[in-house]
Amino acid sequence: MSYKFSQATGRTKRSEIRELLKWTRKPSVISFGGGLPDASLFPTEEFAAISREVLEKKGYLALQYGTTEGENEFLDAISAHMVSFGDQVGRENLCVTTSSQQGLDLMAHIFISEGTPIVLELPSYLGAIQTFQRNGADMHGIPMDENGIRLDLLEETLVKLQRQQRLPAFIYVIPDFQNPSGINMSVERRKGLLSLARRFDVPLIEDSPYREMNFSGTVLPSLWSLAEGKGVIQLKTFSKMLLPGMRVGWIAAEPEVIEQVVKVKQTTDLCTSSFNQLILASFLNQGKMRQVINRAIGLYRPKKDAMVSALAKYMPRGVTWSKPDGGMFLWVVLPENLDSNDLFMTAIEHNVAYVTGRPFHCDGSGASTLRLNYSFPSLENIETGISFLGQAVAEHLDRKKA
Amino acid sequence: MSYKFSQATGRTKRSEIRELLKWTRKPSVISFGGGLPDASLFPTEEFAAISREVLEKKGYLALQYGTTEGENEFLDAISAHMVSFGDQVGRENLCVTTSSQQGLDLMAHIFISEGTPIVLELPSYLGAIQTFQRNGADMHGIPMDENGIRLDLLEETLVKLQRQQRLPAFIYVIPDFQNPSGINMSVERRKGLLSLARRFDVPLIEDSPYREMNFSGTVLPSLWSLAEGKGVIQLKTFSKMLLPGMRVGWIAAEPEVIEQVVKVKQTTDLCTSSFNQLILASFLNQGKMRQVINRAIGLYRPKKDAMVSALAKYMPRGVTWSKPDGGMFLWVVLPENLDSNDLFMTAIEHNVAYVTGRPFHCDGSGASTLRLNYSFPSLENIETGISFLGQAVAEHLDRKKA
Repeated sequence: MSYKFSQATGRTKRSEIRELLKWTRKPSVISFGGGLPDASLFPTEEFAAISREVLEKKGYLALQYGTTEGENEFLDAISAHMVSFGDQVGRENLCVTTSSQQGLDLMAHIFISEGTPIVLELPSYLGAIQTFQRNGADMHGIPMDENGIRLDLLEETLVKLQRQQRLPAFIYVIPDFQNPSGINMSVERRKGLLSLARRFDVPLIEDSPYREMNFSGTVLPSLWSLAEGKGVIQLKTFSKMLLPGMRVGWIAAEPEVIEQVVKVKQTTDLCTSSFNQLILASFLNQGKMRQVINRAIGLYRPKKDAMVSALAKYMPRGVTWSKPDGGMFLWVVLPENLDSNDLFMTAIEHNVAYVTGRPFHCDGSGASTLRLNYSFPSLENIETGISFLGQAVAEHLDRKKA
Repeated sequence: MSYKFSQATGRTKRSEIRELLKWTRKPSVISFGGGLPDASLFPTEEFAAISREVLEKKGYLALQYGTTEGENEFLDAISAHMVSFGDQVGRENLCVTTSSQQGLDLMAHIFISEGTPIVLELPSYLGAIQTFQRNGADMHGIPMDENGIRLDLLEETLVKLQRQQRLPAFIYVIPDFQNPSGINMSVERRKGLLSLARRFDVPLIEDSPYREMNFSGTVLPSLWSLAEGKGVIQLKTFSKMLLPGMRVGWIAAEPEVIEQVVKVKQTTDLCTSSFNQLILASFLNQGKMRQVINRAIGLYRPKKDAMVSALAKYMPRGVTWSKPDGGMFLWVVLPENLDSNDLFMTAIEHNVAYVTGRPFHCDGSGASTLRLNYSFPSLENIETGISFLGQAVAEHLDRKKA
């Protein structure tokens, strides 16, 4: 049989990272790849109790088809959750998604035709880039500084696109503890971004998976709250609040956007598991989500500190890294002449793995960057693994000089 | 904010049926719309026990990210399930999906670019038509007779398309107890379809949600088994085996197709809930799925018989209907001058609702058809509701004559 695949299939690249991560199956390798939560924090006992309760009291709902928008009980629970982080939202603003990757998928569907211009950060989340690419987006990457997306460069791009009558369908950003850079967008930058987006009448997509994983205790206002929900679409998920196996997230947006989201979601998976929604609604309503978040922060912060210290201890001169106040990742910039792809096999020989930085750049730049995850490895492995990485970088620098 | 939506958004129609079904919220209305399983059959007690077991023994897997292909334990359990229905399959042929609606979504992604010709039955599953339409498919509908898709008309269409060098990307059929027609494709027709597809080198998509809901006990060979898995893609789901709330299904196909499916699934939702997969794996391995299927058949068959008898008792002359040996639906054809859309409000006045037939036709035909669901309503409501429907049809015929 000769299958004739679509253009979208051709545009969808096999993940470079996925290929590289195969090496991490070698048992001796300490992996800082992936973005997994620490499984020791999983609330399995609470989930078993809540699953029973949901099935006993609401089995007729939990195992049945649900509405596309989501179960009312769940929508109310996530509203309350958002309000507790400073975001006002009502049922009419919400649609449940099968994780925030589906949020990205639905954004691609409703906004991107072949050649549609969009704007995103350099670097940005790999899974977003792949999904936007699948739909044939014309991606414009804007570099970041330590305060987030650079507004001078963004304005330049918007002016240029406006002249071509090709204003972007949206600007996609991850303001809180960005993946992969770890950068937390400053309040001033958030306000500036919003006012620029308004001037050009371009919607903002605020991907917000790490907002809750905040080590500092200072929660910055979201774009959603600064804009009072106008012109901003927020993507959320429980995957980084420790429950990726549930595959539940949501979209907050103006009702006219939610209407399109719901219509298209019907063509992708009809509805998200009611069973999983009702379990999470109880988990939220019983205040257990907050406990899990606090436990995660208590575990991740020392891991991040340990990784930052280990980098200072073991990295050769010329290497720099972020010192994030939340999220799950550290971003490392190697000296200019070093390519993290070339370094990878040397690192594997030294029994340590990471994720290369290039796939996070929609313009193919970022060769000298790499991402390290600190949420999954143990404190001990962080120290050991970073010492291995330091050796690999040093060896590679020597080779380059030779 | 002025949102600029994509071409796909424009092509995705708000479901006509969804609008009509709003009327069924009127408490006095007996609804034969929808396609819900009977909730009295939900195995809530078994699910509570299995959920606890899964969380206790495999919580680290159940609540974690899984692989895109699916959990090995789940893939092995569905292989065994397929084998028990005569279909040989290995792990390399499988990818889990978030219900079979995602199976359809992935088929649309990997095969349909704007204008790609595809072939489907007249009528066919509404959810498939909407998804294919979203991606801009050029749909060619082939009428059915009591044995399934008409091969003479299919051949004519394939010859015509071949002359234009536009052979379809696939032929989409639902051989077992088709939704909406209830028709079970005969063995001869299955073989003829396969040989025609091979002659023109066109893949077959075999959507197979109702295969297990078989009242006769005689299981016909699937296209997958007749083709020994070559050139056939089978879409499966647990939604019609009574567990729509789990949102778990799968795709069986040749490895080269699975490779594309996996790549694209990563852009849509990364992976399907491991928690739900592991629960279903245990449920299958403990033999409980077979028990649930048998309980459902024991309940649905008398409901189907009751609906067929009630139609014979209450329908005016000129109305015909299918007498399916499985599945969840009866298909009704009204006398030619009656439009089921026009009839709808009369039916609601008589406190009965159904699903109009036109949205199941990719060419906009089928005005005089309608679909009745018998799995959800009670035996008593079936008798009463069909008597109401008989009155509505009679009244409408009288009005037409007047």
